[in-house]
Amino acid sequence: MAAAAARPLVAVDWGTSSLRGALFAPDGRVLEEQSFERGILTVERGGFATVFEACFDRWMRPPGSFCLISGMAGSQQGWREAPYCPCPAGQPDVAARLTWIEPGRIALVPGLSCEHGGVPDVMRGEETQVFGALQLLGLNDGLLVLPGTHSKWVRVRAGRIENFATFMTGEFYALLRQHSILARTLPADDAEPDDDAFAQGVARALQGPGLLHSAFSTRTLSLFNRMAGPALASYLSGLVIGEELRAQPLDAGSEVIVIGAPALTRRYALALPQRGLRARCLGPEATWCGLRALANTLHQDAP
Amino acid sequence: MAAAAARPLVAVDWGTSSLRGALFAPDGRVLEEQSFERGILTVERGGFATVFEACFDRWMRPPGSFCLISGMAGSQQGWREAPYCPCPAGQPDVAARLTWIEPGRIALVPGLSCEHGGVPDVMRGEETQVFGALQLLGLNDGLLVLPGTHSKWVRVRAGRIENFATFMTGEFYALLRQHSILARTLPADDAEPDDDAFAQGVARALQGPGLLHSAFSTRTLSLFNRMAGPALASYLSGLVIGEELRAQPLDAGSEVIVIGAPALTRRYALALPQRGLRARCLGPEATWCGLRALANTLHQDAP
Repeated sequence: MAAAAARPLVAVDWGTSSLRGALFAPDGRVLEEQSFERGILTVERGGFATVFEACFDRWMRPPGSFCLISGMAGSQQGWREAPYCPCPAGQPDVAARLTWIEPGRIALVPGLSCEHGGVPDVMRGEETQVFGALQLLGLNDGLLVLPGTHSKWVRVRAGRIENFATFMTGEFYALLRQHSILARTLPADDAEPDDDAFAQGVARALQGPGLLHSAFSTRTLSLFNRMAGPALASYLSGLVIGEELRAQPLDAGSEVIVIGAPALTRRYALALPQRGLRARCLGPEATWCGLRALANTLHQDAP
Repeated sequence: MAAAAARPLVAVDWGTSSLRGALFAPDGRVLEEQSFERGILTVERGGFATVFEACFDRWMRPPGSFCLISGMAGSQQGWREAPYCPCPAGQPDVAARLTWIEPGRIALVPGLSCEHGGVPDVMRGEETQVFGALQLLGLNDGLLVLPGTHSKWVRVRAGRIENFATFMTGEFYALLRQHSILARTLPADDAEPDDDAFAQGVARALQGPGLLHSAFSTRTLSLFNRMAGPALASYLSGLVIGEELRAQPLDAGSEVIVIGAPALTRRYALALPQRGLRARCLGPEATWCGLRALANTLHQDAP
């Protein structure tokens, strides 16, 4: 096997709805990036190797190339199940529990699991983004949030993920937006975000009436002509994100690192100060940094 | 116009998805009941009179017959808009604000509105059930809940509805059950309710993590084979109803009157004691009693 520093890395983030890859030079620069509409939901059972080759064959051809894959590709519905690594877990713990598709060449990064009072929680892919973010920011401790369909709130101490919690925030928003009675009140397309209406939604949620009650106000504010159209969609977004912030113990004054696409991290940067917290935003490039850092750990220790 | 005591009453509950009627004898007995799949969503704009005649012409034929209609028929999407009556409101307030379709013959009962910190809330139809329940139970004060797609919690003092709050409990359950990622984990049909799993869901919700977080446990408990199939659906129902109970200030030890179909009131009778409350259940016949009581009020005062 080639020496660690000399091996080209193919970093892959294979999620439910998308497949993205980055080719690293041995010196750590990203040479090229690709993205495909081949999330795991589009891949038949047994078809993962074929899709992988079709997408990344050129990158994997040079001798010594190897690939780390994070995300839902390691789930029961993915290429192969990579069993969850229990928390607390640092990067070395994850590196020691890779599931190798081809030994020394292609590996799946395991997700993490933790327990809250007898109830399990899980993540797949976000652990890699967290390790990347810590590296990018030069941090060993912190509270991070990865907003999305299922937002993950992650507590890191001494470089290890101590525990985390999932909030189905993005999915609830989409359900209410598309399938609930509120859909009739809201415009078909999300227009420009209305920051004032968003802030009103966050403020209402932080008063603590719970989403089952507060969501109905999207309807009544419209019924009484106190808010309309695009503002209502932003208000609902504020209600849901505000509820995510209300529902957990958070120390006032502390900093939260928000990782994700700018359109989404921006909303958290607006909402967090309403809960007395400071936001620091980071783009999704944390994934590449995380996979690269994991590869480096790996070459120091294994196989 | 015939004397109050001598007029036959046609009591109608015209909701979003169903149309039900009861014919009262002048002495107050229910002579006959009918129900039609003609909720307001099935009726074209301008078509309400035709549907009403097709359904209730025979009952309305005797001279002096008159009809009171409660529910969504009085909404913007209904027969005609019956403007909301603001809280606090008692039965005489509602009787004074009927919207007459045919003066002295057919009237729409207005819904109620109230305000919580600048945010309006509304109900249509439930006010009639509440007045009926108070009459049936001989009460002037109490806390009542009418569970359903949109549960209404109603506070009554001195015979008047002081305020109320809507919780989109039934709708959230249906959204999660049918359209969310959890749908994949749950059986297609609701089987026998599993009371233990339901109680676990309520208990989990009462710990206070919020529904955005707790709902995800439906997925992880399944993923870790700690709960399966029908039990998961009951657990999710417990999470949602438990969240409804968690999210509001309720005095321990007090009694809550639960009005609705037995399959649903039963769940609240199971959940309320977990929150330290006593449940007293009443069937949906409260509607007929409420419309009858309203008719009596009317004949004393108007028109």
